[in-house]
Amino acid sequence: MTERPGSSVPARVLAVEQGRARARSDRLAAEEPLEIRLLTSEGARPVAVTMRTPGADFELAAGFLFAEGVIGSSSDVRAMSYCTDPDVDGEQRFNLVNVALAGEAPDMARLERHFLTTSACGVCGAASLDALQIRTGPLPSGGPRVRPAVLWALPERLRAAQGVFEATGGLHAAGIFDLDGTLLALREDVGRHNALDKLVGWALLQSRLPLDDHIVLVSGRTGYEILQKCLVAGVRVVCSVSAPSSLAVAIASRFNMTLVGFLRGERFNIYAGAERVLTEA
Amino acid sequence: MTERPGSSVPARVLAVEQGRARARSDRLAAEEPLEIRLLTSEGARPVAVTMRTPGADFELAAGFLFAEGVIGSSSDVRAMSYCTDPDVDGEQRFNLVNVALAGEAPDMARLERHFLTTSACGVCGAASLDALQIRTGPLPSGGPRVRPAVLWALPERLRAAQGVFEATGGLHAAGIFDLDGTLLALREDVGRHNALDKLVGWALLQSRLPLDDHIVLVSGRTGYEILQKCLVAGVRVVCSVSAPSSLAVAIASRFNMTLVGFLRGERFNIYAGAERVLTEA
Repeated sequence: MTERPGSSVPARVLAVEQGRARARSDRLAAEEPLEIRLLTSEGARPVAVTMRTPGADFELAAGFLFAEGVIGSSSDVRAMSYCTDPDVDGEQRFNLVNVALAGEAPDMARLERHFLTTSACGVCGAASLDALQIRTGPLPSGGPRVRPAVLWALPERLRAAQGVFEATGGLHAAGIFDLDGTLLALREDVGRHNALDKLVGWALLQSRLPLDDHIVLVSGRTGYEILQKCLVAGVRVVCSVSAPSSLAVAIASRFNMTLVGFLRGERFNIYAGAERVLTEA
Repeated sequence: MTERPGSSVPARVLAVEQGRARARSDRLAAEEPLEIRLLTSEGARPVAVTMRTPGADFELAAGFLFAEGVIGSSSDVRAMSYCTDPDVDGEQRFNLVNVALAGEAPDMARLERHFLTTSACGVCGAASLDALQIRTGPLPSGGPRVRPAVLWALPERLRAAQGVFEATGGLHAAGIFDLDGTLLALREDVGRHNALDKLVGWALLQSRLPLDDHIVLVSGRTGYEILQKCLVAGVRVVCSVSAPSSLAVAIASRFNMTLVGFLRGERFNIYAGAERVLTEA
């Protein structure tokens, strides 16, 4: 049996400085496809292929299925396993996760079309928000009250815990913190959405959802996808070191979420839900 | 008729510095869904919905369809238009692009399944490369020879031309340069892959493909998707200001592409195709 692929791989690179080249060893963030399959009465049905950094694959599968509304809690998952097909060799087995649901499998045709089609001619940010509204509704008002100094400390804590980033400089990260700023879990991936799916999948498998008294910090920009995944997981305080998109701010405003961006040094911007941050005027 | 949505939108934010909050005006990178539809004999069939920054939507549609192998040149496109359905209101019309092909529409069922399923149980980076190999084969060896000083200058030129980034701090960019480092085209988007699709779509609609004597620079990290899109467009020199993934390096090595990363100041790393960069030992 081949070894499970790691989250970084060795490489030889040519480092060029002022035109002078020097060969040296380096490490690259690993990227491999992961196929997520649902076991149904008609056999294993693929629902998604995502390019991801190997590691935390069951969490990724669980988080993805949760974000898509296929599962709602850990009890909806009967079992998860890597591919056990004897015809599949070595490390490929680790690029296939089979998920057996506790209940009925969802309508597969509907699920397969989920991302590719919309039901009506109307496509716009507002319509996307309406679709979210039907699924979740706004998060409860009130909730956590956070001190600015707690927020300032988060990026450094996230970075310090990012083992693979340290080695490769090439990974996005998402972290869950408690309201005192203690890091509870961190996940890394070449894809920002995958890092968050892994993190939410971890929380789901630990029966910690909803994450309503927590802070989530992502290393990159925030857009529709990040806010959608946080909303479904009940995260009321979402922070990023970078800029939000218009739709990220629209989601946060409509669904009672606090959205902080450009969290750098002792500065940040609040784009929505400012009442949860204890600032002075 | 409503105005076409812009690439950035105004917002009020609360800027917090050392705990002190001050309201100010800001601009956010616009994010809106775009649905791409193919006009077939059975009517308009949606092939993709992507969250994108409005602007260059026809280029985005063309670049996306080219990357997916649906079209091969500008002559494969008979017409592109925004939604003209009278039942659809205002700006939503600008979130729907209809593409009429010159020839037969492809097998829609196959196309819809493209991203969601694989044909065999085998899923791994090597299999992904095999699939690319079947479609394109390696790019011709030789080709451009680039001076390091030309590469050093690119990030600053890209940034200087990034109008929306300047306003919002929130956009990815992709640029095409000639071998002297002159910027020929730049496209921005909240999604890295969209910025590149817009850029390749521009080249396609201008009948400039393949981009075999050009340099493409992307603002973020490089992974499978970026390299795949560059490969299909014939780009032999791909640069990024950040890290490549393992699969990005694997694609570049296998398909005769030059891949430069961490292009910052007068330094960069070469991960593949070093013969196209004129370095000293």
